[in-house]
Amino acid sequence: MPNWNFLFDMLKIQSVSGDEESVSKFILESINQRKKNWIVTPEIYSGEKFHDCILLKFGNPTTAVFAHMDTIGFMVRYDNQLIPIGGPEIIPDVKLTGRDKFGEIRCSLLGDEEGIFHDFPRGIERGTRLSFEQNIRMDSEFIQAAYLDNRLGIFTALELCETLENCWVVFSTYEEHGGGSMPFLLKFIQETGPVKNALISDITWITDGVHHHEGVVISIRDKFIPRKKFLDRIINLAQKSGIPFQLEVEAHGGSDGREVQFSPYAIDWCFIGAPEDNVHTPDEKVSLKDLDSMIQMYQYLMKEL
Amino acid sequence: MPNWNFLFDMLKIQSVSGDEESVSKFILESINQRKKNWIVTPEIYSGEKFHDCILLKFGNPTTAVFAHMDTIGFMVRYDNQLIPIGGPEIIPDVKLTGRDKFGEIRCSLLGDEEGIFHDFPRGIERGTRLSFEQNIRMDSEFIQAAYLDNRLGIFTALELCETLENCWVVFSTYEEHGGGSMPFLLKFIQETGPVKNALISDITWITDGVHHHEGVVISIRDKFIPRKKFLDRIINLAQKSGIPFQLEVEAHGGSDGREVQFSPYAIDWCFIGAPEDNVHTPDEKVSLKDLDSMIQMYQYLMKEL
Amino acid sequence: MPNWNFLFDMLKIQSVSGDEESVSKFILESINQRKKNWIVTPEIYSGEKFHDCILLKFGNPTTAVFAHMDTIGFMVRYDNQLIPIGGPEIIPDVKLTGRDKFGEIRCSLLGDEEGIFHDFPRGIERGTRLSFEQNIRMDSEFIQAAYLDNRLGIFTALELCETLENCWVVFSTYEEHGGGSMPFLLKFIQETGPVKNALISDITWITDGVHHHEGVVISIRDKFIPRKKFLDRIINLAQKSGIPFQLEVEAHGGSDGREVQFSPYAIDWCFIGAPEDNVHTPDEKVSLKDLDSMIQMYQYLMKEL
Repeated sequence: MPNWNFLFDMLKIQSVSGDEESVSKFILESINQRKKNWIVTPEIYSGEKFHDCILLKFGNPTTAVFAHMDTIGFMVRYDNQLIPIGGPEIIPDVKLTGRDKFGEIRCSLLGDEEGIFHDFPRGIERGTRLSFEQNIRMDSEFIQAAYLDNRLGIFTALELCETLENCWVVFSTYEEHGGGSMPFLLKFIQETGPVKNALISDITWITDGVHHHEGVVISIRDKFIPRKKFLDRIINLAQKSGIPFQLEVEAHGGSDGREVQFSPYAIDWCFIGAPEDNVHTPDEKVSLKDLDSMIQMYQYLMKEL
Repeated sequence: MPNWNFLFDMLKIQSVSGDEESVSKFILESINQRKKNWIVTPEIYSGEKFHDCILLKFGNPTTAVFAHMDTIGFMVRYDNQLIPIGGPEIIPDVKLTGRDKFGEIRCSLLGDEEGIFHDFPRGIERGTRLSFEQNIRMDSEFIQAAYLDNRLGIFTALELCETLENCWVVFSTYEEHGGGSMPFLLKFIQETGPVKNALISDITWITDGVHHHEGVVISIRDKFIPRKKFLDRIINLAQKSGIPFQLEVEAHGGSDGREVQFSPYAIDWCFIGAPEDNVHTPDEKVSLKDLDSMIQMYQYLMKEL
Repeated sequence: MPNWNFLFDMLKIQSVSGDEESVSKFILESINQRKKNWIVTPEIYSGEKFHDCILLKFGNPTTAVFAHMDTIGFMVRYDNQLIPIGGPEIIPDVKLTGRDKFGEIRCSLLGDEEGIFHDFPRGIERGTRLSFEQNIRMDSEFIQAAYLDNRLGIFTALELCETLENCWVVFSTYEEHGGGSMPFLLKFIQETGPVKNALISDITWITDGVHHHEGVVISIRDKFIPRKKFLDRIINLAQKSGIPFQLEVEAHGGSDGREVQFSPYAIDWCFIGAPEDNVHTPDEKVSLKDLDSMIQMYQYLMKEL
């Protein structure tokens, strides 16, 4: 039975890119509580040397699973101006929350792509991060909330830890705003317990070819393109697994896979994750069936890859 | 006498970015056949550890020559949609070919920059790569075909191998779609037999300053800019050589040189290659005189640099 | 008393990205003259192995200060066309200077963003670099000149050297045109005397939130975003210092900090520098009070960080 409480608690933590400290601590605490129930006890790497990232090394890995901890959001500029962090949807009147040295902030977003503002009565300190107010909804078919991208990728990675024997599980930062932690994470991995394969545990998009309830998405490409030989291997395994999945072919978008592609290591990579509707809004929506396929597919691949 | 049969056979192989396995095997076989006629027998590095790339190490190198093996093309999205790989020209009714698990594919491209489609009667598997149908034409002045970019760069690099004493010759992947193999290739080179200089054996553009029959192009810049001191050295040598060449100065475009520039190694780089008309179409056209200058210039520089 | 003669002499040297040899030699000579007055004599790394960059290692560093030596400019294309290097303002009739093998060049810029030309009576060699004619103006409040970005960052870094005990001071190239020296500089630093922090000594913009005479700018973000934990530490120290400073929050722009962010090392970074008006023109204008705050702030931080 999945650890829903962990997910719900994690969904309440803000972690706009560059400010992942709180969610990182929360995940680390959870790891320390849960690891006694895992088949293999991993080596845990965290702390200032890794900025706010966390790496778990199970056994002798040939594969690493990456899940990013940051979310999109906004930063307060001058006066009541806002500028985006990552690519949030600009939705007039949407509620934003955060805090500065004067206390808690709850306000509405005003404006449009041309200029974004907040309506908080007092000034907010320059550089304060705001993000969508959380509102978690779950029924028998769907979960809906802000930050599902990528709280569900983290959730999946930690569910996976229970049965892992040989694998790196890595929690990265900054993914929504151009990246920047992957290069040092990959260097550390390759110098500590090198891998050949990277799987990106993240959330993708509902499009005209990808639908709710049709299974986890294996991405053949976004803006970047994994090596065909590795994709073929993953897709063949997925077919053998009997677990529902769908294939994505998009021209845009990116993930931590981009930084694997451009790293100085010959590591194959593939994005595997459930699709969501209402991307980068407070109403991100994922099918529970697809989330289940995602967890199952990772469990299957970690045994077969 | 140049190895035209090798070139013609290589032009028939499809190798859209990310799917370079076939052309890589073909080149490796040719290397193994031809190396007995080379002055120096190189160390050959290839196989899964290098994904589909190939590296040849002749003697004690200070320079590396890079030629990319991939080409532009298209990927099948959903329904009959296509999305580009690299930057192919979108030419209505142009013929595309490829294959999926159901067999060979030959179809026409429909649409424009706003939306591209194929007219193949049956559905094509998601993620299938298509590229321009090949049609090789050669007369006394010109060669014309798809994929001259960068089959001629590979052709030149292999002609060069006959007389090489000290040099790396490297066949890279992914160049047309943002790169990604150069970082690990450069790391391997610098850790195995480090170099100071990189020459990019690739094909450039006919523009208002670069013309057919006026010699190989030495590029002073494209989007990126090599170091002036190194360019001056190359241009001085080219002037001494007596071999026809022309100087290019462009604001756009890129090559494997970009990834040398941004690598964590202080390696100078320069793009040297024949110019073509009808770039990224099935009718790429290169002057045989310019191709000859390209081969001669590389042979000269490899002795003098 | 600041070394104004050094600054004025350095402002007269052209060093468009990719052609930093002259300014690099000038800075190195100055270092060799001035180092006898410095508290700690640094190890000096320069020469072909570092292309045109210079690194100074004082004591046992945990922080590195970076100042770029290149400037924006133009390159001569074909006929009388020009293309930009970096992002110079296109100002009709502005005077440009440079030299090619036929001699000195002084001409006017014609055209606009759609097409730029020069009016020099004779042809200019392809690939020749031109940049704004220098005109240095200083009164009791302001310095105004071309190239203040980033001659003032270099000036500050060298003033700082007088009292440094433990720090890297690094002069980089190519910053205005996408970078490319930072990756190998960072690799050398981390392998020679690794650091945790990087400060970018560079010049930023007057905007609706950043004004002349209000102190050195600490940048909370430009296009890229430093880690909040490190920013908080810097801002706390700045507040304790009593030195005037202002906080910048911008959506665009970049610096050598970008390449620290994307490097394979977990190094925190922050941009700290005086703001200028008339960015990337011959009339860049900086408050002397802000320049003074910049020097003081670096001196303070180098003791406290």
